[in-house]
Amino acid sequence: MSRSVLSTIRTPADVRALRPGQVGRLAAEIRAFLVDQVSRTGGHLGPNLGVVELTIAMHRVFESPRDTLVFDTGHQSYVHKLLTGRGDFSALRRREGLSGYPSRAESAHDVVENSHASTALSWADGIAKANELRGLADRHVVAVIGDGALTGGMAWEALNNIAASEDRRLVVVVNDNGRSYAPTIGGLAHHLDSLRTTQSYENVLSWGKRTLRRSGPPGRVAYDALHGLKKGIKDVVAPQGMFEDLGLKYIGPVDGHDEPAVERALSRAQAFGGPVIVHVITEKGRGYTPAEQDVADRFHAVGRIHPETGLPVAPSRFGWTGVFADEIVRIGRRRPDVVAITAAMLQPVGLAPFAEEFPDRVFDVGIAEQHAATSAAGMAFGGLHPVVAVYATFLNRAFDQVLMDVALHRAGVTFVLDRAGLTGDDGASHNGMWDMAMLAIVPGLRLAAPRDEPTLRAALREAVDVDDAPTVVRYPKSALVDPIPALEDVDGVDVLARAGADGARSVLVVGVGAMVPCALEVGALLAAHGLRVTVVDPRWVLPVPAALTKLVGEHDHAVTIEDGLVQGGIGAHVAQRALEQGVTTHVQAFGIPQEFLPHASRDQLVGSLRLTPEDVARDVLTALEGR
Amino acid sequence: MSRSVLSTIRTPADVRALRPGQVGRLAAEIRAFLVDQVSRTGGHLGPNLGVVELTIAMHRVFESPRDTLVFDTGHQSYVHKLLTGRGDFSALRRREGLSGYPSRAESAHDVVENSHASTALSWADGIAKANELRGLADRHVVAVIGDGALTGGMAWEALNNIAASEDRRLVVVVNDNGRSYAPTIGGLAHHLDSLRTTQSYENVLSWGKRTLRRSGPPGRVAYDALHGLKKGIKDVVAPQGMFEDLGLKYIGPVDGHDEPAVERALSRAQAFGGPVIVHVITEKGRGYTPAEQDVADRFHAVGRIHPETGLPVAPSRFGWTGVFADEIVRIGRRRPDVVAITAAMLQPVGLAPFAEEFPDRVFDVGIAEQHAATSAAGMAFGGLHPVVAVYATFLNRAFDQVLMDVALHRAGVTFVLDRAGLTGDDGASHNGMWDMAMLAIVPGLRLAAPRDEPTLRAALREAVDVDDAPTVVRYPKSALVDPIPALEDVDGVDVLARAGADGARSVLVVGVGAMVPCALEVGALLAAHGLRVTVVDPRWVLPVPAALTKLVGEHDHAVTIEDGLVQGGIGAHVAQRALEQGVTTHVQAFGIPQEFLPHASRDQLVGSLRLTPEDVARDVLTALEGR
Repeated sequence: MSRSVLSTIRTPADVRALRPGQVGRLAAEIRAFLVDQVSRTGGHLGPNLGVVELTIAMHRVFESPRDTLVFDTGHQSYVHKLLTGRGDFSALRRREGLSGYPSRAESAHDVVENSHASTALSWADGIAKANELRGLADRHVVAVIGDGALTGGMAWEALNNIAASEDRRLVVVVNDNGRSYAPTIGGLAHHLDSLRTTQSYENVLSWGKRTLRRSGPPGRVAYDALHGLKKGIKDVVAPQGMFEDLGLKYIGPVDGHDEPAVERALSRAQAFGGPVIVHVITEKGRGYTPAEQDVADRFHAVGRIHPETGLPVAPSRFGWTGVFADEIVRIGRRRPDVVAITAAMLQPVGLAPFAEEFPDRVFDVGIAEQHAATSAAGMAFGGLHPVVAVYATFLNRAFDQVLMDVALHRAGVTFVLDRAGLTGDDGASHNGMWDMAMLAIVPGLRLAAPRDEPTLRAALREAVDVDDAPTVVRYPKSALVDPIPALEDVDGVDVLARAGADGARSVLVVGVGAMVPCALEVGALLAAHGLRVTVVDPRWVLPVPAALTKLVGEHDHAVTIEDGLVQGGIGAHVAQRALEQGVTTHVQAFGIPQEFLPHASRDQLVGSLRLTPEDVARDVLTALEGR
Repeated sequence: MSRSVLSTIRTPADVRALRPGQVGRLAAEIRAFLVDQVSRTGGHLGPNLGVVELTIAMHRVFESPRDTLVFDTGHQSYVHKLLTGRGDFSALRRREGLSGYPSRAESAHDVVENSHASTALSWADGIAKANELRGLADRHVVAVIGDGALTGGMAWEALNNIAASEDRRLVVVVNDNGRSYAPTIGGLAHHLDSLRTTQSYENVLSWGKRTLRRSGPPGRVAYDALHGLKKGIKDVVAPQGMFEDLGLKYIGPVDGHDEPAVERALSRAQAFGGPVIVHVITEKGRGYTPAEQDVADRFHAVGRIHPETGLPVAPSRFGWTGVFADEIVRIGRRRPDVVAITAAMLQPVGLAPFAEEFPDRVFDVGIAEQHAATSAAGMAFGGLHPVVAVYATFLNRAFDQVLMDVALHRAGVTFVLDRAGLTGDDGASHNGMWDMAMLAIVPGLRLAAPRDEPTLRAALREAVDVDDAPTVVRYPKSALVDPIPALEDVDGVDVLARAGADGARSVLVVGVGAMVPCALEVGALLAAHGLRVTVVDPRWVLPVPAALTKLVGEHDHAVTIEDGLVQGGIGAHVAQRALEQGVTTHVQAFGIPQEFLPHASRDQLVGSLRLTPEDVARDVLTALEGR
């Protein structure tokens, strides 16, 4: 068997050196490689299968890292990794293995590590401005952004700024698969669809090709001839519409799996010398039958799968999501005023069953957390009770809206935060570790961190009953534990365990949400060391319950354990509340330290952050010895 | 003299009942009233002079509060207040007087109190969805948004969602003065300008008028006839462009000072029965010569002025801004890599002198704080040092970008937060009280709160020297105090005063930024009660300096005083850091409580929040007695 093309690729220069005939083979080899590798490790399979030819073309036309390539929601950078010397995918998304996103530590070809959507155009605008001011204006900046990410407000802010420049060399590749996360709705989708389905689609390409052959050296003249700068000519070949109205040149639509066509479009954009949109039509999951047949999701992100069938190797890890999915439907049956809002994550957050039963009562707003929060405030004003379900880390995007639209107006809106706490393998920007510290700032906001299925169901029911303040229910990505019953309810705080002899020094151990099992083990370890221990779960942790402050005061020492940022987290607020109340008991807070975490498994992170029960118990004993 | 029309207006029904001939008089009377009243109290004069006819027309066509009127950046709601029974402007923006923004407590006609821009369309979308689900679909929701606010990402997210509905009765009035805060730049401005300057502008109106007269009863049929739903016809009368591409009906442009024309346009929008954009051209400051002649700002917001001349009664209160304006120019001369970014606030944040001297190195990104932060990260990647200057409260909008784009990528970006702390008369959403608690979450971020001119200059110089982390310099709206010299520098912490006898109980008083003068007075009061007092200013308060924690440990009691949220604020972080270090000194934190503050003067708020030196000293003495 002849040597594979892929094995000859060490740097982008090798990609540029390929003969046209080799490019198709490279694309096929990359697809086979991705299916083989990602089925073993899990990862974002569908998106990367969709950008194989696009990424090859980008590296053939532009010269990274001299030219800067920026990938929005970096999960679509696997092909880029392969073409820039990173061929070992065996430990993808595992500690010491390749990140699932771009990583500056891995390569000089990587720029943006943030996996939150819609940022790439702002990065690109900034880099292009810097190039211009530093006399490097001949360098290109190329940003790839999905049609879904274009629905995010940041992308609009950036487009508006990009259009203000006439000569910055900035190429915006709109990777349009019509379904970045799920079928995209709204005005932008309408417009992209009209561009996509124009009858002159094919004509544009062939006309462009003919004209290119006839024209002389590349440059703005060639571009003008090709693209027809005069509005009249352009409208003959394709409706330019919105982008043109903003003052942006537009090339497309281009078949994103026709590599030579994409190369030609990118070359034209390169030759133009100013900001250009290149509209590329791709298919998520392209070339892998199980993904192509998965209408709902196209294998956006998978765990380990059987490569032939695409079926999962292990059962779903998302038990918490399933409980939410079930309980919100039950609530919906009882409460016709309850509606659901999602930011392009209907399936992942578990709203599909609700959408099926109440299609008129679910709103997918696009990747638009700000609009999700503020339109929810509007709905609450209008007499509904909206439930906004997003990943915990993405609510960061809507902090101002939660504060100034929901809380200031005392709107009864419930936020459901999935993937809260440590998520691990998706790396720094996916960990849901900021929510509690951030939301603790918001006046009137109430936050529940359920510990198991019954407390999740109860918290949801309680949350939708609050009609004069924002409520939040947050839960982790980790496996659902068996129900943990309470011994007693002390004014809303669940007492889960009591141990140790009367008269011994007493310690209150407060477990927050997913850390309750850890708290119980810590309690047992401390009791084994002769301490009198009470383990509690306040369930509603914001605002800090008065009963919890009282319990703190009834013990000699208090310990809080949370899977959120420890600085400014729940423990810090318990300590501050206790101080304000004149309670002098020392509150020792355990949680995630204030740093960006490398990708690793959740268990590895818990270990390296010293949040195992053994670690916590040891630190508590040390603190007690010192007092 | 005949009775004024304005004096006959008690409710919107009175506005609707006016004969056409009275409307012009009403508008003139409102303008005279606004100039007379706002010149006495200060307020947003220019924007309200621009929307007199528009607001009258809205109340004549729609029926508030049955129909919902939402004003973006509510400072343009003075006319609305006048028409809904609120005629006493004598205490505008003062305690017990009218709010400068809509206020639900004032009137059933007010909905959105948040003064942050670009939110109105999301509110409107939510309210329209609620109306639809609750069987109230015949009610209209009308949102007024400026062309500047349309550059904000939220507005795009909302437009995209509004376009997804065919039959929600939502009217988006684009109040286009071409300069919401300052000359608006970018692609959207380009597009609005092309709509505005089309030669068929006048033709649209007269054609519409003729067709309206000829057509039968109102309704979708009439609308279609009027507006020409068939693309071919429409393009004859005006370029519809972007909004149409998004799937939104578009009416305009309309002369916003021709009240009957605005009424006709709104009536057509009302009759259509689905989402419609009405593009209204207005002039900020219209009808008041000093405002019309103020090219830069059009009297956007004024203090007390002489009504005839428009000249200020009192000198500018914004000494801090002036110092920044001067120092950033000095830095810019020395450091060619330093560039400035502003979010549509070039003048108010003091960047005009920098822009004059370095026109290529200043970027006004529109009302787009997210893009400001992330494009700054891009510029830092490209080798520049950006300084992003915004009001403190508006940085809330970019929390995720500061965290995930700037801090995660260790970008050397300096944020300058003007109007930090209590701003008072602008009400709840303008107070810059969230920044420190919010930014304390961000790993690696360093924040300085200078106390006077020399420390502001020094903090800026130090901030732009940091190239591997975000830096923040924040200062208040209040008057600049005389320089407060340090007695001594203890590892970066300025010791400002020492008092009291050796051997007495010792108290460390930590003043943060604008609260340093208060801290000095508290120190003097405590010393007079026989305590040994040290008053310090750490200047850089985030991360909590090690020297400060050490100083806390060297005293029997510590007091922190800040003009930010006390929950999760600097004091809370000092306390947490001390606990982590095994320091057992009690840290008593003073700051702004976790609530939304009513509008009042800064001094009134300081008094009601018990943050005067006397209040603080009393509370400290009480705490010490109890220990």
